[in-house]
Amino acid sequence: MSLLSRISLGPDRWLARRLSMAIGNAPLRILLWDGSHFCPEGVRPLATVLIKDRPTLLKLLLEPELGFGDGYTAGRIEVEGDLLEMLCAVFRATARPLSSRWVPALLTRWMDRRQANSLRGSRKNIHHHYDIGNDFYRLWLDSRLVYTCAYFEDDTASLEDAQIAKMNHVCRKLQLKPGDKVVEAGCGWGSLALHMAKEYGATVRAFNISHEQVVYARRQAGQEGLSSQVEFVEDDYRNITGRFDAFVSVGMLEHVGLDHYKDMGVVIHRCLSDRGRGFLHFIGRNRPQRLSAWTRKRIFPGACPPTLRQAMDCFEDWDFSILDIENLRLHYALTLRHWLERFEKSRERITTSFGPEFVRAWRLYLTGAIASFHTGVMQLFQVTFARGMDNNIPMTRAHLYGAAAEERESRCMPVMS
Amino acid sequence: MSLLSRISLGPDRWLARRLSMAIGNAPLRILLWDGSHFCPEGVRPLATVLIKDRPTLLKLLLEPELGFGDGYTAGRIEVEGDLLEMLCAVFRATARPLSSRWVPALLTRWMDRRQANSLRGSRKNIHHHYDIGNDFYRLWLDSRLVYTCAYFEDDTASLEDAQIAKMNHVCRKLQLKPGDKVVEAGCGWGSLALHMAKEYGATVRAFNISHEQVVYARRQAGQEGLSSQVEFVEDDYRNITGRFDAFVSVGMLEHVGLDHYKDMGVVIHRCLSDRGRGFLHFIGRNRPQRLSAWTRKRIFPGACPPTLRQAMDCFEDWDFSILDIENLRLHYALTLRHWLERFEKSRERITTSFGPEFVRAWRLYLTGAIASFHTGVMQLFQVTFARGMDNNIPMTRAHLYGAAAEERESRCMPVMS
Repeated sequence: MSLLSRISLGPDRWLARRLSMAIGNAPLRILLWDGSHFCPEGVRPLATVLIKDRPTLLKLLLEPELGFGDGYTAGRIEVEGDLLEMLCAVFRATARPLSSRWVPALLTRWMDRRQANSLRGSRKNIHHHYDIGNDFYRLWLDSRLVYTCAYFEDDTASLEDAQIAKMNHVCRKLQLKPGDKVVEAGCGWGSLALHMAKEYGATVRAFNISHEQVVYARRQAGQEGLSSQVEFVEDDYRNITGRFDAFVSVGMLEHVGLDHYKDMGVVIHRCLSDRGRGFLHFIGRNRPQRLSAWTRKRIFPGACPPTLRQAMDCFEDWDFSILDIENLRLHYALTLRHWLERFEKSRERITTSFGPEFVRAWRLYLTGAIASFHTGVMQLFQVTFARGMDNNIPMTRAHLYGAAAEERESRCMPVMS
Repeated sequence: MSLLSRISLGPDRWLARRLSMAIGNAPLRILLWDGSHFCPEGVRPLATVLIKDRPTLLKLLLEPELGFGDGYTAGRIEVEGDLLEMLCAVFRATARPLSSRWVPALLTRWMDRRQANSLRGSRKNIHHHYDIGNDFYRLWLDSRLVYTCAYFEDDTASLEDAQIAKMNHVCRKLQLKPGDKVVEAGCGWGSLALHMAKEYGATVRAFNISHEQVVYARRQAGQEGLSSQVEFVEDDYRNITGRFDAFVSVGMLEHVGLDHYKDMGVVIHRCLSDRGRGFLHFIGRNRPQRLSAWTRKRIFPGACPPTLRQAMDCFEDWDFSILDIENLRLHYALTLRHWLERFEKSRERITTSFGPEFVRAWRLYLTGAIASFHTGVMQLFQVTFARGMDNNIPMTRAHLYGAAAEERESRCMPVMS
């Protein structure tokens, strides 16, 4: 148990000590509304967390994740110092998930039920995050609105370049060639589908249940003269029909829900041709763990990043063969740094449209996500797979890298009319 | 049910039909001792399986895997035509494991108990296969006696080159550098340990419970002047102690047993430094499935190739982060083709030493293994991992390929005295 210095008397003293324990005695100074403050003995605090009133302190203790997120959003908690450093310190200190406390456990069960990913539930969950307004996302994503982890061949690459590199990395993993029929499950604003059509000559059917995103993607296809090659379908992945040379899903599995991976497997099995290539890109975990209660409640309802073990539910029933798994978590930390920087540059415009609480919530979400990927609390997995009996698979992965990749690309490029 | 042509009357007729069903009506002609033969209607048989007596037919029906293996070994079953093609046809036709039949199920349970991988049991299991005699393995392995999947950067590479390429591929994945302390669990005849010392300047402690292999490896270290850099320890992986910069295990996890993966995780957690890199290379499965009863009984007692889901038992308790998984099953098919070809060239010498039944059993094992990897019944996974919080991990895998790999190697090479 930590020794706290200069503590106020009475019940707050006890509460404050509980709080310090709840965050694993992370090297932080906790400052209360009455000016009393404390810090685990012998550490140099990385930042100060100011708690402005007793109800906020109580909420923090009852459900630390929700208490912190809501308190920060409402301005009842302030962080003096670097928010990212503060969050990294807490994540490192609490690397083992705090589990058996009854309020968080009850809240988790309640949210599991309330946010279940039925056909209707998924639509509601997705609407909450992705239909905020395309204009908002345009302020801080890259020009193509790619809202998934980029691929930085080089740390100093721009976000625009890194998103193009990511799309090429995906297409190389799928060994896309002109004329390939591709189905995409969860297509965001359509950037990858359009890229596969334009740069690789593929024909794409792309599914999404976010209305705003589909409307945008269709307009974009029209503007780029790709409407005959790319079809955007406003429907759930469970309703995908047809047979395809490639199945691709980037950033959707997190939203599918652990209990629906077998449904996902059924869909992939149904629509992948015998020599088809499959690809899933998703946020994952090293160990089973839910998203924070705050993230689930305020940011991503219904979402849960799986461990690789959990993700195997998509594959094992159907004799799919995993060919390649890559972990890109540091790329996601870097991607999110770009997003946060752009977000902060547009802070005033976003405040005008959505109010200061929205800005604080999204700052916390983006910063927390950087911290999660930076400290290894979250992973980014890319899984490439094929049918178990398919021998039409690459011997090595050299085609993804260096000169071999570029040479292959130039052979692949369709002749533009 | 298949229609059989020209069938003998009496109970053999019924038995033969059962046999054809048991191998999924694979396109094979079955020829009995009395000259009667049959083939699923409308197929062109790939080979003829001659069953020389009724007891052999009965054993085949009771336990097809053991019945075939033992019958073939004893010369009571002959295959006219290509054995590899025949086995591939059966594996394809029976891709879904035949499970619920009671004789195979009982046999599996009996072997699970009898071949359990306790400290003593593992020693017995390993002794059965790896202590046959180094002279035998020298006849058909490469000159370094690497008895695991090679890596063919190019289909036409020699086995020698492909084994060197494999060892370099492993060392690149581990990002080995001069001075690194490495522990190897299950080191065979020591080729990788010696390669890591000689080519990368690492110091290696290599564990193995095969007495013959350890004796050979120590002599080899002496001859190459590497005894001060590489220590071969005749002990079980569960007894590894110390802290290391890298943990590597190539071709051992198959022998560990599904119920000991958590022990393996404990060992890795205990001995890997905070910035250590880990690497497991093992035969695996797309779906949970035991080795064939014959393989377990005659070739690899106690062995079981895991699915990736099963292998995750090594990692999830300890916040290890999977960085990279590669599937090299086609490389193993190619490696085994080289081994079989060399084996057949030494057939006469092996017959003289071990007798004709041994030769037939090993031909079946090697050919069956080619068929397993070729048809996708077995996989070869290479898993690279690190501690969850370690950010000292490569951003991309470009360092494994092409010019980048070679350039890095030349910087890595220790100055030889």
